[in-house]
This record gives sequence, structure tokens and C-alpha cells, in this order.
Amino acid sequence: MASTGAATIATIADEVGVSLTTVSKVLNGRSDVAPETRARIEASLERHRYRRRAKRRSTEVEQIDLVFHELASGWATEIIHGVHAVADAARVDVVLSQLGGRHRPSQQWLEKVLLRRPLGVLLVLCHLTESQRQQLQRRSIPLVVVDTDSATSASVPTVGSNNWNGGLLATRHLLELGHRRVACISGPEDVLCSRARAAGFRSAHDEAGIPVDPALFRYGMFSAHAGYQHGLELLSRPDRPTAIFAGSDMQALGVLRAARQLGLDVPADLSVIGYDDLPVASWIGPALTTVNQPLRDMAGTATQMLLDLARGAELSTSRIDLVTELVVRESTAPPRQPG
Amino acid sequence: MASTGAATIATIADEVGVSLTTVSKVLNGRSDVAPETRARIEASLERHRYRRRAKRRSTEVEQIDLVFHELASGWATEIIHGVHAVADAARVDVVLSQLGGRHRPSQQWLEKVLLRRPLGVLLVLCHLTESQRQQLQRRSIPLVVVDTDSATSASVPTVGSNNWNGGLLATRHLLELGHRRVACISGPEDVLCSRARAAGFRSAHDEAGIPVDPALFRYGMFSAHAGYQHGLELLSRPDRPTAIFAGSDMQALGVLRAARQLGLDVPADLSVIGYDDLPVASWIGPALTTVNQPLRDMAGTATQMLLDLARGAELSTSRIDLVTELVVRESTAPPRQPG
Repeated sequence: MASTGAATIATIADEVGVSLTTVSKVLNGRSDVAPETRARIEASLERHRYRRRAKRRSTEVEQIDLVFHELASGWATEIIHGVHAVADAARVDVVLSQLGGRHRPSQQWLEKVLLRRPLGVLLVLCHLTESQRQQLQRRSIPLVVVDTDSATSASVPTVGSNNWNGGLLATRHLLELGHRRVACISGPEDVLCSRARAAGFRSAHDEAGIPVDPALFRYGMFSAHAGYQHGLELLSRPDRPTAIFAGSDMQALGVLRAARQLGLDVPADLSVIGYDDLPVASWIGPALTTVNQPLRDMAGTATQMLLDLARGAELSTSRIDLVTELVVRESTAPPRQPG
Repeated sequence: MASTGAATIATIADEVGVSLTTVSKVLNGRSDVAPETRARIEASLERHRYRRRAKRRSTEVEQIDLVFHELASGWATEIIHGVHAVADAARVDVVLSQLGGRHRPSQQWLEKVLLRRPLGVLLVLCHLTESQRQQLQRRSIPLVVVDTDSATSASVPTVGSNNWNGGLLATRHLLELGHRRVACISGPEDVLCSRARAAGFRSAHDEAGIPVDPALFRYGMFSAHAGYQHGLELLSRPDRPTAIFAGSDMQALGVLRAARQLGLDVPADLSVIGYDDLPVASWIGPALTTVNQPLRDMAGTATQMLLDLARGAELSTSRIDLVTELVVRESTAPPRQPG
């Protein structure tokens, strides 16, 4: 049972007591193997830390898999642009999947991937189970995660952006303008980036010596609808905030609508900051102050890491956070009555 | 040389004087065949109207190709959603390509497609050359076009929406509100849908007996930037229009910014209508009156047609236009001084 790292298909077939063909079928993701046999073979592969040598004919078409937890408008387009910029140059095809909001692909998705044997898998805001991850690893199919959530194993390479810094910069800007009642919606709590931005929001308050009112902090979905609902709630309070830091530009659009509905002028009565800096942010009125998240660069960097891993290169670093920047436009201003 | 429709690989090999293997290589998109030989084989395949019988092993992963001329924000996301709704249900993978604004894929793209042999190819706002189309046809790879431009052969199945009707409804709405100087930006002139909408714009004027001022009509790119520039130009005229019908919601965002910059209130000083009804249209302020183009349904319908063709079904109809509808929101109102 000692791991040698040098097991062959014959070793596995021998140990499990099946034919070479059966082991090969499991490795190729074929479905015509009894579940119980398959499980025994996978277990043996795992015990021996079997790694298939990457072997491709030159005539094979090279593909990578790009998997979104959901195709959010605008945001997903930026990621796809970044992936294609690198993949097109390398003449690698992109197979697109979306999980309809789930954060983990199904086993059925994995089986198709094993059958297709892509150069690698790029996950956006989603993760694999440890077992799924190992199944890819045994076939030498590398994995890179963009904008990781907290469930990603530390051994998986990730590319994100400095979300804590984004939260810090946005909140500092509002505090420096003189706001003292600043609300934060952030993103969903189960996504790591939301918690990092929330921490940045708190840090900015700490360094300014201003307490955070817990009533003004909440986690919410990234959608415009969530921004609208949380915005209405926050702005209907007797002690309403004079500024709101939203979790995404779409969420900020919802906050802006809530403000309009309540007759509040932005930025005179309310300052609003978005997150992402989608193309639409600079076109709406008032143009949205937001945190620029370099989505295209993040996606391009992750794709390059994946292609490097696919050709057997060692990554010099496996956790990359790109820089976030505050883009000040028209939706933020000093509060009408400071303090 | 008479076409029998029943030629085999042997017929072709015999006629060209090459081996069966060489013909097979060309059919499979392999690159290791001399260009001159390849050309002679393709010509022979065409003369005999050779059709490969679709033959797939059950273990093969089924894919379709989705090709965009460009990945415009929001718009592309809606199409991708519609394609995935049908493809995911059929357990078919989607390979995504974008042509960086060109309206015709490269031969290099086609060669990869021949190598992969997808179930079919879905083109969005782009087309193939006649030769590329025949190469797909000879491999029994069906083709469906979404939102066709004018260069698509009449024999290719297409799914669009009723653009003429969209142009008619939008313009009628503005004329009925009392506007008499209505401008139209439409989309790029080389795209069929732009010309159809322009025709609808003219028809609405005709039926109301109101002349179109040629100075108020122009073709423009679908981008926010194009809307901004055309908007500035139109609104800086001494005889400026009191309403603008834009070619897309993004273009309308640009027009709205131009109006803000010139101190014009929407809708009091200027009515604006967009096109597409992207999610963002209902969230901006003023919420955008626009023509709903059922992008998800169009993409879903086209995907279903493609899968039907791939399994050898006959299409009952090969040119489908879905219904467009006017969605009236806050950006349109009667002109301040009618007439």
C-alpha cells in the first residue's frame, strides 16, 4: 500500500483483479464499468497516487473548460473576454459551462470532462469536491480557480483580486468625504470575496476611529434586485445612512433605483459606490464611483496559468491577487449635513 | 461527373488518384495533406455532393459550436443563457468562440471544427463563406444562424426577431406621443437587422403621413460610445430632434449621457427608446423604454433546430422570426412643445 508515485495501469489492474481494459475505461471516463468496480479502481488509483502521463496526438483539438457558477450579466462577459484573449492566441478552444447558481459542478459534468480530457479546467466562483479534484489530478488535468470561494483547497492555484483592499479604498473614500453613517451590502456571505470586502470596510472604520453600526452592514446577492431591496430597507430607516457601499455594480444599480423611488438625490442626499467597474458603470447617470476589479486580467492570468500547468511547467506562485483600484465618478460627494 | 449523391470515399480516392487514407484525412480536418491535394479532394467531394453519414460512438462527447462576431456586454450573456438552457438539457457541451468583431470565421477556425466534428454550428451575427458552408455540409455538420446578416445563404436555417416590426412599434409610439422630429440611429448598415429596423422607422412615418428628415437618420455601431457620439451630434443641431430611437440599449445609454451633458432632461426635453431590453434597461434612471427582443428564446429556438438537424430531422420551417414588443417605461413622454 505504500505510495510509490510510479504505479502503472498494470499495477492497478493487478491489485484490483480486473483487466487492463477495465482500468483504462475508468481512466477515460467511460460509463460501461459497474459502479462497485469503478469505486475499487478509483480507490486503488488514489492509494498509488497514480498520475496518467499527459499524452496527446498532434491532431487532437486542445480545449479548456470554463465553468461559471452563474452567467451574471456583464461580469461574465468580462471574464469570457479575458479567457479568450489568451486561449485564442494559444489556439485552444473554450468549452463553456454554467451551474445555474450552484457552487459545485455535478458528477455528470465531471464524467464528461474525463471523457473529453481537456487541457485543464477553469472554475469561476465555484469549486470541486476533494474527490472530484483528485479524479482530475489522476488524469493530469490541471485546475485553476478564479475568484475563489472559501471551499477551495489550498493546493489549488487561484487568481483573484485584492478584495480587502477594494473594501478599504471604497470605505476610506466615503469616510474622507465626511460620511459617518456608511452602509455596506457586500456580496453573499458564502463567497470569500464578500467577506474580504467586508473586512476592508471594517478596517477603514477602525483606522479612522469610527464605529461600524451593525444595523448598516449586511450580506446580499450580487443582483440589482438584491441591491434594490436592501437599499429600500436601509434608506427607509429613520437613521438612514448617507452612503452605501454595494457589492457589485448591478447591486449599486438597484440601490440607485431605491434612492430615486424615495426621492433621494445621488450624490447630494446619498453617496453610492459599486464594485467591478463594468462597462455600464461609466455610462449611467450619475456615473458610478466603483472599485475596479481587473476581471479580464484575472481571467487572462488564470488561463495562462492553466496552459502553463497543462504543458507541465511549474508555477512560480499559485495564489495571485491582482490590484483593485477606486474609480471616482459622480455618485459620491460629501454628505449634505456632515457628522 | 454527374452527381449521384451516393459517392463513397473509394469513389473520391479513385477519381483523384489518392489513397482512402488521404481522403479520410481531409474529411477529418487533418493538416498533414498537401494543400494542392486537399483542394483536388475537396473539389471532387463537391462534384459528387459527397455527404458523410453521421456516425458517432455512444462514448463520444457531443458538442455544438457557438460563434459570436463579438461578445457585446449583456447582449451576448442573454444569447449564451438561451443556448445553455437547451444544450444543458440535451447534455450537449458548448464550445464558445468570438471573432473579435469580424463577421466571418477564419479558415483556421473551420479546420478545428472539422477536426472536432461537433453536432452542429450556431453562428450569431456572422456568416460563413459558401466554401466553408459546403465543407460543413459535406461532413454532415448542420449550421443555424441567429440574427442573420445579409450575407447568409437563403438555404441556411436562421432564427431572428421581427426587426421591422420593432422599428415600427418604437417609431409609432413616438409619433403618437406627438413627436414630429424623430431621429433614428439604428445599428451598423452591413447588418440586416439594422436595415429592417430602419425600414420600420420609415414605415411608421409613412403611415402617419409625416416625412422623415434624412439629417435625422443614421447607421451606427451598437456600442454606448457610438450612441454618445451620434447623440451629441444630433442634439447639438439647431433643429434638434425631440426623440431618438437607438439601435440598442447600450447605444441608448450613450444617447442618455449626451443628453445629460447638454443639460437636456429625459423625457421632458428628449424621449429615448432603446432596443433589446437587456436586464440593465429596467434598472437605470429614467428606466428605458425599449423594444424587447427575445434573445434567450431566439438562442434556445436556434439551438433546438440545430439539435434536430443533427439527429437527421427535417425542419418544418427554416426561417423563424420571433415577435418583438415595445416595453414602455420612463424615458418617453410627449414633447414639451408638440409640433
